Amino acid sequence: MKFHTRKWVKPEDLNPNQTLFGGKLLAWIDEEAALYGAIQLENKKVVTKFMSEINFLSSARQGDIVEIGIEPIKFGRTSLVLNCEVRNKMTHETIITVERIVLVNIGENGKPAPHGKTQIEYVKDRLENN
Amino acid sequence: MKFHTRKWVKPEDLNPNQTLFGGKLLAWIDEEAALYGAIQLENKKVVTKFMSEINFLSSARQGDIVEIGIEPIKFGRTSLVLNCEVRNKMTHETIITVERIVLVNIGENGKPAPHGKTQIEYVKDRLENN
Amino acid sequence: MKFHTRKWVKPEDLNPNQTLFGGKLLAWIDEEAALYGAIQLENKKVVTKFMSEINFLSSARQGDIVEIGIEPIKFGRTSLVLNCEVRNKMTHETIITVERIVLVNIGENGKPAPHGKTQIEYVKDRLENN
Amino acid sequence: MKFHTRKWVKPEDLNPNQTLFGGKLLAWIDEEAALYGAIQLENKKVVTKFMSEINFLSSARQGDIVEIGIEPIKFGRTSLVLNCEVRNKMTHETIITVERIVLVNIGENGKPAPHGKTQIEYVKDRLENN
Amino acid sequence: MKFHTRKWVKPEDLNPNQTLFGGKLLAWIDEEAALYGAIQLENKKVVTKFMSEINFLSSARQGDIVEIGIEPIKFGRTSLVLNCEVRNKMTHETIITVERIVLVNIGENGKPAPHGKTQIEYVKDRLENN
Amino acid sequence: MKFHTRKWVKPEDLNPNQTLFGGKLLAWIDEEAALYGAIQLENKKVVTKFMSEINFLSSARQGDIVEIGIEPIKFGRTSLVLNCEVRNKMTHETIITVERIVLVNIGENGKPAPHGKTQIEYVKDRLENN
Repeated sequence: MKFHTRKWVKPEDLNPNQTLFGGKLLAWIDEEAALYGAIQLENKKVVTKFMSEINFLSSARQGDIVEIGIEPIKFGRTSLVLNCEVRNKMTHETIITVERIVLVNIGENGKPAPHGKTQIEYVKDRLENN
Repeated sequence: MKFHTRKWVKPEDLNPNQTLFGGKLLAWIDEEAALYGAIQLENKKVVTKFMSEINFLSSARQGDIVEIGIEPIKFGRTSLVLNCEVRNKMTHETIITVERIVLVNIGENGKPAPHGKTQIEYVKDRLENN
Repeated sequence: MKFHTRKWVKPEDLNPNQTLFGGKLLAWIDEEAALYGAIQLENKKVVTKFMSEINFLSSARQGDIVEIGIEPIKFGRTSLVLNCEVRNKMTHETIITVERIVLVNIGENGKPAPHGKTQIEYVKDRLENN
Repeated sequence: MKFHTRKWVKPEDLNPNQTLFGGKLLAWIDEEAALYGAIQLENKKVVTKFMSEINFLSSARQGDIVEIGIEPIKFGRTSLVLNCEVRNKMTHETIITVERIVLVNIGENGKPAPHGKTQIEYVKDRLENN
Repeated sequence: MKFHTRKWVKPEDLNPNQTLFGGKLLAWIDEEAALYGAIQLENKKVVTKFMSEINFLSSARQGDIVEIGIEPIKFGRTSLVLNCEVRNKMTHETIITVERIVLVNIGENGKPAPHGKTQIEYVKDRLENN
Repeated sequence: MKFHTRKWVKPEDLNPNQTLFGGKLLAWIDEEAALYGAIQLENKKVVTKFMSEINFLSSARQGDIVEIGIEPIKFGRTSLVLNCEVRNKMTHETIITVERIVLVNIGENGKPAPHGKTQIEYVKDRLENN
């Protein structure tokens, strides 16, 4: 699993108990999944359709740095299934896991459309091949 | 199921496809669940521990009004399990469902603590009985 | 008066004195009034035209839950007048009151337009009658 | 009346009708009044106690620049009364007026306290006199 | 240099060390420069092209009031160069300085366009001359 | 240069011209630099002291994905100097460059303190060596 995006837990991200607000964390995950899908499927119209069970294993406090890991686990015909883990950057302690996030590739007509992808691609390779 | 909190979908709530950003919706749900738990368990230290599968059934657009419904389905010893549905206020079309959100009641020492509740209570009744 | 929307006072809602920022509270009220008007008048183009005197009776602190109550007090030809109270959900202590919020129903041409409503309607009834 | 703070109306400030969200405007006014009071009374603990009638005279659109004017109209014993106008910076068209905003000076004990001020003071003069 | 816009440092503006988040300060400066340019050049399409060295001289804490000063230092053919200082309103201690912020005037076609201005103008004078 | 954090340009990130608000971009950079410094120096109290010239080379639009690259260029005694580039993830077009961002390591007493680091370290190695 590759961990890319990092977040610095700031006062605006806290719940009233002064730990990282779970809703903020879910929003970070949803954004990271959506942009990962957009990169892989080369389509800006990618929507989240489903998330499997979400386990809040530990929390984070103000000043902690968290990193979000995403790994594709299945390229469907119109879908892409991702696995996600968020962890504390400094200790690698897992904060949250989501086993499956299902994204759907949306076509011009607003309906699911085949994306034609079958495996991870790297932007660098795409750019070099042009 | 009682629907309380309502949200007006504003530009700041949209994803780049101009529909309601899923991450924002998840944050709204997490806040509603947490405060519902705080009300029922009469404890501000209530944390989300688990969410079951999340189905994004439809979306919402700018100017739509959505309402968030919560229903307790089990009072555990230290936990409270909620069922959640978000729907479009004007059409009652379901936007998202989360079958089970598990909250945990946290004690003074930061650990799960028994909450002593076994059923829904209304603030009005509590106030009248004092 | 019906109290629907609930807010959990989070760090991002505080003023530098660590109490609920009054401006945030006013924004919450304005949103609640606007969406209440949109629901009653079945029109998304409803704008706030006037607010009567606003009394800040008490404040709220981090972790408090506040609920916003709205009650229609007059259905005009192109307007709707609402009464609003925000209170602490757990103690029912009043935080703020606004006696009259005047909303105006806007037509296709951007000007005030008759809304044809004379009393509260429930979405449930509207949907059942269709 | 002196106009100091200026705001650039950005997408995040809009309501779903694509005009400046009234709640945002009220939050801007409340912040400006509070900091004006803090400057005049030389006390960070200044709270909004009351706002008189608020007239929404015109609106603003994305890209507009609005400026917020404040003028003290009465120095009470523990209070300060301000008059406020928000207008479009380029056209000077009035957007909103609030005739009286009553701030209260809070003492160490969290209660209203005399502030000892009777007229406008300029920070420049205070600094030069030290 | 004229200081117009004032900000009240609220919890949402802090970094995890509980001082004013530098990124927030840079965002405030960029907004102030852009709107200053829009006012002077009478064009809403003004973009930041360059900022010279930025010195973070001191910080600010929750409850502090900061004010942002802007001064034009050169009117180019399609550009406007500004000097900026942010300081603590109560002590006049400098928080940050940016010697040159270069804005570019954008024409209908999205390209730099001559703005025809050679010196500071006041909106009041413009309005009176119409 | 390693590119980690990615951002999806959403409506809330736009300026009134509907391109990415420069101030938002600067805030993203400052956060990324600060957390990079915190990771390398193993200290949460790391502050931005200086940024060299900032060139806004191109912009980004709603739905674009941008990635932020950071590279350490000098480990001083109490400082860390970083080089930063933000680019469009899909095209690798450069959006902004900042040649030098100087961070300072702060000690318990709130003053600059030696950090004892001389080169890049990886969290993985640190964890394995314990």
